[in-house]
Order: sequence, then structure tokens, then C-alpha cells
Amino acid sequence: MKTFSIAILGCGTVGSGVAKILLDMGSVLSERSAHPIELRKIVDLSPKKSSEKYNIPLSLFCGGGKDLTSEEASRYISEIINDKDIDLVVETIGGTGDYLLSVILDALKSKKHVVTANKALLAERGSVIFQTAKENGMTLGYEASVCGAIPIIKSIRESFTGDEVQEISGIMNGTSNYILSKMELEGIDFKSALKMAQKAGYAEADPTLDISGGDAAHKLAILIRLAFGKEIEYNDLMKEGIQNIEKEDIEFANEMNTSIKLICYAKKVEGSVIASVKPMMVKRDNLLSRVHGATNCVELINKYSGRHYFMGAGAGGPETASSIVADIVFTARYGVSVDESRQTQRLELVDTDHFEFPYNITFSTADRPGVTGLVTTAIGAQKINIDTVSHNRHNRKEAVFSVATMPCTMQQIKDAVATIRKDSPELLTEEPKAIPILQ
Amino acid sequence: MKTFSIAILGCGTVGSGVAKILLDMGSVLSERSAHPIELRKIVDLSPKKSSEKYNIPLSLFCGGGKDLTSEEASRYISEIINDKDIDLVVETIGGTGDYLLSVILDALKSKKHVVTANKALLAERGSVIFQTAKENGMTLGYEASVCGAIPIIKSIRESFTGDEVQEISGIMNGTSNYILSKMELEGIDFKSALKMAQKAGYAEADPTLDISGGDAAHKLAILIRLAFGKEIEYNDLMKEGIQNIEKEDIEFANEMNTSIKLICYAKKVEGSVIASVKPMMVKRDNLLSRVHGATNCVELINKYSGRHYFMGAGAGGPETASSIVADIVFTARYGVSVDESRQTQRLELVDTDHFEFPYNITFSTADRPGVTGLVTTAIGAQKINIDTVSHNRHNRKEAVFSVATMPCTMQQIKDAVATIRKDSPELLTEEPKAIPILQ
Repeated sequence: MKTFSIAILGCGTVGSGVAKILLDMGSVLSERSAHPIELRKIVDLSPKKSSEKYNIPLSLFCGGGKDLTSEEASRYISEIINDKDIDLVVETIGGTGDYLLSVILDALKSKKHVVTANKALLAERGSVIFQTAKENGMTLGYEASVCGAIPIIKSIRESFTGDEVQEISGIMNGTSNYILSKMELEGIDFKSALKMAQKAGYAEADPTLDISGGDAAHKLAILIRLAFGKEIEYNDLMKEGIQNIEKEDIEFANEMNTSIKLICYAKKVEGSVIASVKPMMVKRDNLLSRVHGATNCVELINKYSGRHYFMGAGAGGPETASSIVADIVFTARYGVSVDESRQTQRLELVDTDHFEFPYNITFSTADRPGVTGLVTTAIGAQKINIDTVSHNRHNRKEAVFSVATMPCTMQQIKDAVATIRKDSPELLTEEPKAIPILQ
Repeated sequence: MKTFSIAILGCGTVGSGVAKILLDMGSVLSERSAHPIELRKIVDLSPKKSSEKYNIPLSLFCGGGKDLTSEEASRYISEIINDKDIDLVVETIGGTGDYLLSVILDALKSKKHVVTANKALLAERGSVIFQTAKENGMTLGYEASVCGAIPIIKSIRESFTGDEVQEISGIMNGTSNYILSKMELEGIDFKSALKMAQKAGYAEADPTLDISGGDAAHKLAILIRLAFGKEIEYNDLMKEGIQNIEKEDIEFANEMNTSIKLICYAKKVEGSVIASVKPMMVKRDNLLSRVHGATNCVELINKYSGRHYFMGAGAGGPETASSIVADIVFTARYGVSVDESRQTQRLELVDTDHFEFPYNITFSTADRPGVTGLVTTAIGAQKINIDTVSHNRHNRKEAVFSVATMPCTMQQIKDAVATIRKDSPELLTEEPKAIPILQ
């Protein structure tokens, strides 16, 4: 039986994890694939480091184990792409640059399957990659790109094929969830929680991509394409991070029997996909509210099979590597995946702002009588039903209270706020903060 | 491209759910399968009922829609098995009898793939079915047999192939979980909770199979075979139901910050699989403790990718049907699954009793001074470390208290109880109840 040969491009934490599993589980993987699986070549700039740390034979590295210049590495990569004996290329270099994109496209055009964990590249420039894979009859494996170890890609691609995904809600950024959990469970503020996340190794020195919602949005963009067949421009996806969540918001959330989570949300509704990444108050009877720390969790609501949750490690070297190896085994066994034959859909991308959610709106106002009546009247005038009004905190010489609404749109809320501003120009001391409530 | 033709045997709730999805989603399923999928024939004793209820054309039913005798149905089933144009047979008849077994084996031998939701048959007589599928190069699809809509079979078969499942803990019987949730959340006793479950349609008139752990054990037996490659005799699997769980147990569990759940447990340890179905006290920081009502949840601990949870509907017509259709699509697309090539392992099946768990042991004793000392001394003499001792309830003229231990075996506990009985024959007024604690 023909050997299925693998090359790994980039041997950092994830790449060397893949090498390690391929070497350690070789015979089992070959049995599962029904092909002998062989790791043939690795390209990395500094082979000695990975080799020592993960016990990978230096002989597997192109160049025999010596450090490579970028030019040498590129040359070896070209050799691999032109090597007829390589069946599948694992891309664990990272980045979204033109060179990397061309490497992946060239590999697919040279009839090599590609497996990658590169969520940023797939979200921002994936369209041409998916198209090229399809045109060349190759599989693009990307289980590892969304929520690390959680098999959400294969579950949608291969398990929910007798069904229709209708709604996705997920906690897909471990750093943000770690920070929000610390704020909720230990009562600390955002800055202190961020410092703890950095100390614990969950947040980068520059945490922008994580806390701004950008990383989560990469994953959501990939899931929207897969679940709804909708190619979206990553930049068109509404994203809002957790930087502005304050202790007070966490307190109001708690009063509402909810937890604030950074939620990736997407729902298919009559020709549209409603989507955003933003903090939401998640009702405590929704499991997502109970997911703490760096864990990820994805909720799907399907037409026939109802509500599902998938929870597990969202990141980590061995976890991500194991997802990559699963894609290798699947491809060696079956060739091209179900997904590659699907047609993309004509769907309009709509921000969740234009969709009805219940909201919790926090008002900071001058502390004088009549304020609650004025605010709730303005809300009612926009045909927004009110669910509850929190007790009024009289701190910082202001009154601070929150109004939980029945489902309405952000436009209705904006109109209500505009009315308040017009009728009582001095009343609001801060811009009201509206956070959607997820059931 | 060749049409992939389906026959459905048995058109009750699940079978007609399958027919409905095949008819409703036809073109999408064909695209996903890369083959036109066609529902060719249905055999059912009373076609009119299913036809009307689920809007299935009578022309699809063998016999043209008229009621069938058993003999007529058998004859039509034989025709289907001998029909070279049928590629896959869906078995939704149910039962574990010889006739049904022979139908499935004959279908496989006639080179038809088989998809079934029949957990009892697979658990009790699966060995020959799996073997026959393998010998004939056919797929046996059984996603629907374990936890309805949860894609746990395909996740182990196809997603965790770059990994090794090491431990399984799951809530796999909705009826038992509904009852335990009612007892915990509403403080009612077992009998009243069972009546509520029957009223709500979650429990059969004869609920034995559900509350005795038998149904859950069927599912665990199937998962053990799949995850560990271990064929087990269903009757050898230790099972204990929830019939003996009392309000007091729930109270003690709550004091220990745990919830009592009927847990399907299996762990691979050096040449053995340790397994049982029994009530356990699940620590509240384990998600399984938060799963309430008829929902199912499976926890896996994997070598590389760590801890995963899969949660969803464990039963229900459309849910189970959608899992069956997913198996049809997978088989039409890929043919024989990864699993069919795996070798079974030589592993010994060991009851969890022989494995170390922390336990909560409840003692009902005569109400006199010195009892706690006597009991805890006997426990200590068996080298069992004690974690906590509950406060002592002096009700029913007895003292009732519980002792939570560090990990130990049931044999150590039995030896401690034997010592207590020997030294103080009158002391214990009931057999002490030991419930393992799941972290």
C-alpha cells in the first residue's frame, strides 16, 4: 500500500508537536489511515532547538540539522512543493504574508493536501485558498485553526451533515475568557486581570489581538464559511473586545443572573447571516456562562438535532498538534473532505446591532429625582418593553442604574438615548453602555 | 455518478424521521455525499400511520401502503437484502432477537452498509456484527446508538485519530438524569421524581432499563469497544441504577459540593479497562454536575488534547434520525470508516470497585457517644485517609453521618465495615452506602 508522506513547514511548538505525535504513534496512525504514514521532511530555521526539546531526529530536517537562512529555507520549501513523493504539507509557520499564501497555493496546485492551524490567514485571505483546494481536488485541513483541540470543524463538516446549523455562539478566545473569569470570580478590574493573564502565560506581551476580539473573529469567520457556506470579508465582521468591561458591568451582570463573556455569535436568518464578536451577558442556565478560565466552548443550534455544546482546550501545543494529526489521518484515509464540494451561498452579512436581542443598558446620570421615569419613558417611547430596572447606585456623585429590556435593536436604543439627550441635555454623565443578553 | 440507494426497515418515530430528512434535504445531502442519495424502499407493518404523520409518500412503502403481516414484511426485507441496487440499509426496527440479528448480518454479507440506532443489539450481540462488517468491507454506522444527537462516535472514530482516549465519564441516560435533577433541584424523593418523569414522557411505563443503569451500560459498552478496542461481554459490565438514591444522599452530596449523577465510567490502565455504570457524586467544578434534565453529556480525557465535553440531546426522533442521516452521508461519501480497520485489544475488564476512588460513605448507627471515633478508627485501620466527616444527623432515633475518604478501593471499605460489625455487632442499623466521588 502506498506510503502517505508528510512534510512540516515550521517546527515551533505546534509543528514539533505534530512531528512528535507522528513519530510516537506511527503504527497506530498507519492502521487508522489504512496507509503507512511517514514524516519525510521538516523545514525550520533553527532545527537544533526543536530537535533537542522534542526529541526529533536531526536527519528529518532539511539541511541535515544546520541552521538555515531564510533563502535556504525558501529553497527547501520549493523543493518540497515540487517533490512528487510528498502527499501532504503541514503549514505551521504562521503569519498572513504574501510569501506564505503563495506557499500554500503552490502546494495545492502541485497536488498536495494542506493542513494548517493558521486562523488569521484563513479568515483574512482564505477565499482563494479554499477555491484553489477545490479546483485542484485537494483537501484543506483546518481543524486546528478553530478552538485548538475541539473537533468543531469535523463535527460540522462530517457529523452534522444530516442537519443544518442554524446558530453558533461560542467562547473562542481563551485569554479574554481567562480575564473575564478572573474579574467575575475574584472581583478584580480589567487591568489587574490582564496582568494576571500575562503572568500565567495566557496573554501575549501585546495582547491586542486577543482582547480586541480579533482572534475570536478569525475563528468565527472560518466557522461562518463552513456552517453557512458564506464567504465573508473578515474586515466586515463586527468585532468589539473586552477592554471596556468594568467591575460595575460584572456586578450588573451578576444581578441579572448572567456572566459577561466575549461571544462569537452567528445566526442564519432568511438570506442573511447575523454576526458579531462582542461581550454579551450570558444567562446562567446557558452552559457558556459556566465556562471559566482559558477553556473554549462552542454552542451550535441545529435544525433537527437541537442544541449542542463542545468544550475543550482552545489552544496549546499538543492539543493543536493532535488536531493537525487528525486531519492528516482523515486525508490519508479518505482524500477530499465533504466540505470541498459544497457551494457557497449568497447571504448578506448583518451586524447583530440590526437584530433583536434583549439588552442590559447601564445609565450614569446626574443624581436627582425623576431620572428613572425620564429614562424609562424614553425607552418605552421607542416601543422597547422593559424587563427589569436595577437598584440605583448613588456613587461618584452620580446615579448609576441599568435597565434590562425585552428584545430590541441597537437602533431603538440609540434613538431612546438621543431622545434623552435632547430632552435633558445635562442628564447623562457618560455614554450609556448596552450589552446584549444571550439566553 | 452512481445513485446511492437506501432502504429503511421499520418506520416508527426514528425511521420516519430518517425518511423525512432524506426527502426534505435530498439535494443538499446529494451534494454533501457527492452521490445522488435516493430513499428507495421502506418496510413497515402499518405504513398509513407513518405516512400520514410524517408526510411520507405511500408509494415508498413495500406493499404500496397496505398494512403488512409479519410474514409479508419478512419477505420484503429478504427482497431488499437481495436487491443489488440497494447500497445501505437503515435498521430502525429495534429489539435484540435472532431474526433481527440475522437481517443485519445478511445485509452486510450481501454487501450492504448498515446504519442502526440499536444500542441494545450492538452492546449485547455486537461482536459478530462488527466482525461481519469488517470481513465484508462494509460500514456499520451507529452514531445514533450512543447519546442520540451527540456526535461522540464520529468524534472518536474520525476526530481523535491523532490522539488516544484515556478516560470516559458520561451522563448517558436522560431518564435517570431527569429524575436525579428533580430530586436535587426540587428536593423530592425518588418515587415522586420517577412519576414526574413518566408524566413528562421521559420514562416508560416500565422504567427498569433506564433507572437500573442497563440502557446507560449499553452505550458505555459500545464506547469501550470503540475507544479502547476492547470487546466486552455486556453482562460482565458492572451496573448499578439510581433506585436506591435517597433524599439524604442528595443532601450529603450537596454538603460535599457535589451532585449525584448516574455516571458511565471507563478508564484504560495498563492492560485493563476499569469500568462501571453507577451513581457517583460529581464535584461541582466538573461540568457533568451541571447537566440537568434529560440532556446527555460525555466527557473524554485524551492523551494529547486533554479534557473534552460533548453535550446535547440524548434521545428524540429528529435528533436520532439526524445522526442516522449523517452516517448515511458519510458512508455514501467515503465508504468504509476508519474504525473498521482497527484491531481489537487484549484488555481485562475490571470493575471500578477494584480501582481507587475517593468515596462518600454514609453510616446509619445507634445514637450513642463514641460512634464517630469507632467508625473513623476502623476506616483508618484499613489505611484509608479521611477527607471530611459530615455533621451528625440525629433523626429516626439513629445517628446518620457520612465520611468522605481520600482515594481507596471498595474492598478497603468493605474490610473497614466488617471490622465495625465484628467489634460492635449492634452499631450499624443499615448497610453503609458508599458512593464514589468523581473529580
